[in-house]
Amino acid sequence: MTTEASSNHETFVLPVRVYYEDTDAGGVVYHSNYINFFERARTEFMRHMGYELDQLANDQGIIFVVRTLNCDYLKAAKFNDELFVSAEIIEAGKTRIQFEQKISRKEQCEGKEEFVLLSTANVTVVCVEVDSFKPKRLPKTIKENLERVI
Amino acid sequence: MTTEASSNHETFVLPVRVYYEDTDAGGVVYHSNYINFFERARTEFMRHMGYELDQLANDQGIIFVVRTLNCDYLKAAKFNDELFVSAEIIEAGKTRIQFEQKISRKEQCEGKEEFVLLSTANVTVVCVEVDSFKPKRLPKTIKENLERVI
Amino acid sequence: MTTEASSNHETFVLPVRVYYEDTDAGGVVYHSNYINFFERARTEFMRHMGYELDQLANDQGIIFVVRTLNCDYLKAAKFNDELFVSAEIIEAGKTRIQFEQKISRKEQCEGKEEFVLLSTANVTVVCVEVDSFKPKRLPKTIKENLERVI
Amino acid sequence: MTTEASSNHETFVLPVRVYYEDTDAGGVVYHSNYINFFERARTEFMRHMGYELDQLANDQGIIFVVRTLNCDYLKAAKFNDELFVSAEIIEAGKTRIQFEQKISRKEQCEGKEEFVLLSTANVTVVCVEVDSFKPKRLPKTIKENLERVI
Repeated sequence: MTTEASSNHETFVLPVRVYYEDTDAGGVVYHSNYINFFERARTEFMRHMGYELDQLANDQGIIFVVRTLNCDYLKAAKFNDELFVSAEIIEAGKTRIQFEQKISRKEQCEGKEEFVLLSTANVTVVCVEVDSFKPKRLPKTIKENLERVI
Repeated sequence: MTTEASSNHETFVLPVRVYYEDTDAGGVVYHSNYINFFERARTEFMRHMGYELDQLANDQGIIFVVRTLNCDYLKAAKFNDELFVSAEIIEAGKTRIQFEQKISRKEQCEGKEEFVLLSTANVTVVCVEVDSFKPKRLPKTIKENLERVI
Repeated sequence: MTTEASSNHETFVLPVRVYYEDTDAGGVVYHSNYINFFERARTEFMRHMGYELDQLANDQGIIFVVRTLNCDYLKAAKFNDELFVSAEIIEAGKTRIQFEQKISRKEQCEGKEEFVLLSTANVTVVCVEVDSFKPKRLPKTIKENLERVI
Repeated sequence: MTTEASSNHETFVLPVRVYYEDTDAGGVVYHSNYINFFERARTEFMRHMGYELDQLANDQGIIFVVRTLNCDYLKAAKFNDELFVSAEIIEAGKTRIQFEQKISRKEQCEGKEEFVLLSTANVTVVCVEVDSFKPKRLPKTIKENLERVI
């Protein structure tokens, strides 16, 4: 049943504070720094799934590199904002993992708090060999674990 | 005549040196730093067209913010590489400008030098008011000048 | 009594995770990113003291800018490290605040965990007017509150 | 003779353009990005002396890491500024190189152009082995070449 299957779906959310280093002279978060926030959330998502990226590099000789990045900027994040950066997996292929990600901020709106969407991204990463950067099959247990939370 | 019209088309190219600050522990340029390089090339393209972005902000009260970003990563740039970052305009709308951009590197290939493509991007920026960040019509002369080089 | 006076002394500690964005091709944290970590800790220290820097800018028209920075690099931080970044105030002058800061990492050493010092910094920030960047007296209550934790 | 010796002294200067990525919400260049500019100038200085840092790493197994950094911030650099970042060597020891560096900007002052000093830094780098990060003697020819321009 779809419902049961989907009950394992995980949307991981990482709180991220905006510091001066993240902003630019326009008074808002510099656009490429959203991309950094998205990666932090993917890294924490993998840790949450039991995978430390440095151990995968050292023990299994693999790292994940970004292959495509599609990002929409809807509203500007500002200095000192507390952002919520989500990551969910929508596909785990032979060598690729596709993530859907969002950045939101809590705002007061007519007396109640609600999440306002600032940015969305679709990011595909590829599993590659540490030294050669050649694509390498996702280890079987990783693929299975990731598929379980799609 | 198409040929005449297209003869005005400009592909602006900015050389960019890769420093340690641009790289990551994977030994290559960190993926969001390509996004910075793309912006440097757009800024220099605008300067080449006669527009200083700080003057546009001070004198006309407008800045350009990134609205969408689609980026493909094909090959990794490395520390100390000299990259060539291009920018060309493919559309200038009422409030938006759409850029097509590439990052390449010269490589020796069977005794001759050739440009190898590392990354491509399609970037849409929106003209907004400095303070409110509300979309604002592109000033007429800017729109016309940009259309001339499409 | 020295002990009583010193009993108010605060050493604030912020945990900071190292992501790929923070590292460089040497495989370690890029040296200027330690400087960012130090500022994150100062910002959180001020928040802990009750001061939100964006509110100070908006309500009182002041921001803090770095005037001098002396930093020693002792050991390299690596990708995926969990660092502990400290901040303590050693002087609060008319317009200046001087911080002593450290970055450490927990390491296993002969069967027990201990903190290993990676970097130290002495940072002086100046209170300035938001627009003019001219030095401005620290608001009295801020000065008093900061002196209380020296 | 001092004069003759000093006639070889080199102050290398690198022009650096300030892009949005370098600025922060205070409207000026973020303080740790000056540190990046200083490193760009040291890298270009070494290239000017005939040393490509990637080749030194690959061929001789050495890299230079920052050991101490003392930086003064005098005036703020702004978006779109063209900065001039200098590097000169003041000592070349067994394993260490000490640099004196400055960042300046041209300004109109009573009808004539002059350089205004924005920041100064004293930076010590250590020659280390690529993998172990253990200090390693500066190769003799490098030491001699650097001493020639002190």
